[in-house]
Amino acid sequence: MSESTDVLQIDKEAQDLLFRAARTANTFSGEPVSEEQVRAIHDLVKFGPTAMNTQPLRVALLRSEESRRRLAPLMAEGNRAKTVSAPLVAVLGFDSEFHLKGERFFPERAEMVAQAFADETGRIPAARLNAALQAAYFIIGVRAAGLAAGPMVGFDAAGIDAEFFPGGTFRTFMMVNIGKPGADHPQFPRLPRYDYEDVYTEF
Amino acid sequence: MSESTDVLQIDKEAQDLLFRAARTANTFSGEPVSEEQVRAIHDLVKFGPTAMNTQPLRVALLRSEESRRRLAPLMAEGNRAKTVSAPLVAVLGFDSEFHLKGERFFPERAEMVAQAFADETGRIPAARLNAALQAAYFIIGVRAAGLAAGPMVGFDAAGIDAEFFPGGTFRTFMMVNIGKPGADHPQFPRLPRYDYEDVYTEF
Repeated sequence: MSESTDVLQIDKEAQDLLFRAARTANTFSGEPVSEEQVRAIHDLVKFGPTAMNTQPLRVALLRSEESRRRLAPLMAEGNRAKTVSAPLVAVLGFDSEFHLKGERFFPERAEMVAQAFADETGRIPAARLNAALQAAYFIIGVRAAGLAAGPMVGFDAAGIDAEFFPGGTFRTFMMVNIGKPGADHPQFPRLPRYDYEDVYTEF
Repeated sequence: MSESTDVLQIDKEAQDLLFRAARTANTFSGEPVSEEQVRAIHDLVKFGPTAMNTQPLRVALLRSEESRRRLAPLMAEGNRAKTVSAPLVAVLGFDSEFHLKGERFFPERAEMVAQAFADETGRIPAARLNAALQAAYFIIGVRAAGLAAGPMVGFDAAGIDAEFFPGGTFRTFMMVNIGKPGADHPQFPRLPRYDYEDVYTEF
C-alpha cells in the first residue's frame, strides 16, 4: 500500500501546514495579525459549502486592548490569559436570522429559503451546524495563512452577545485566538487520534 | 494591496483544489472510491482540532448496493437519485457517549472528561459542534484526495440510526456523497458569497 501522503493530491507542505504539523496555540508572539491576512483568509474559505449556501457565520474581531478588557470577564478563567496574549481574537457567532438574507446568498430562491427556515426550532440547529462547518473552514484558513489558531469554548455566550451586539442577531458559539505562536509552542505533546477502524464502519 | 493568494502560505493549486475551484457534486462518474483513499483522508484530517480532543465524529460508509437500498427510503426524495449514483456515501454521525472513551483520546484526563460531559444537556450540543467541525475537515480531506464531495442534510436521522446502528450510540447529522464528478459537473453556476464587510466586525 502506498503512503497516504501520496494518495492525496495536495503537496506534503500543504498537508503539514493545515493538519499534520499544525497545533493549537496557547501562547502567542507579539507579532500582529493584519487585516490583509484576515481578508485573504476570508477570500479563501468563503467558498466552503453550507446548506443552501446560507453562510450563517458572523465574526467579531477583537483587536483593541479595550475590546479585550470587555471580553475578559465573560471568559472562563482558564481561557483569559491566553486570550489576552493573542494579537487577534475572533469571536465566532451565527446570525439567528440568516434566513431573511436570501437575496444575498440565494437570489433565485430567497423566498423559499425564508420559508424553509421560518420555524426557529429548525432554523437555530441549522445555523449551528452550518456555522460550525464554516468555523472549521476558518481554522483551516488561519493555518493556510501561516498563522496558529487557538479554538476555544468556555465563555458566557449570552453575555458576549449582549456586550458586543446588544439587541442584535449575533449568537456566539466559539472563539479562535489567532497569531504567531509563542516561543514555548507547542506546550504539550499531541494527544492520540482515533484509528480508521474506530471511526469508520463499512456497509 | 497584494493578491490574497500571495498572502496565504499554501500554493495556489492547493487553494483551488480545496476551496476556489471545488464545487459540490450532484452527479458522479462510475469510478469507485477506494478504501485506501478514505484511509488517506482520515490519516490527514484526524489531526483537526476538537474540544478536549474528543473527536466525536463516527462515519458509516455505504458502498454496497444493498446498503443503498436500505438508505434510499430514509432520504428526502430530492436527495435519492444523486445518493444512489455516488460510488460512496459517508453517513456522518456523532457518538452520543463519546465522553466515556477518554482513555483513548485524553488518557491523562479520562475521568475529568467523563465528568465534564456527564450531563446530556451539555454533552449532545458539544458532540454536535465538534462533530460538525470534523465534518468540515472531512469535506476538505475528500477534496484533498482529488475527489468531489456532495454534503447533504434532508433525511430521517432517527430512522437511519435505527437501520444501521440499532440500539447504538450513533446519531446521524449529515451525509456526504463522494466520488469523481459526472460529465455534467458542475450543474449550476456558483452562488454568491458574502463579502468581508458582511461577515466581520472589528472592535
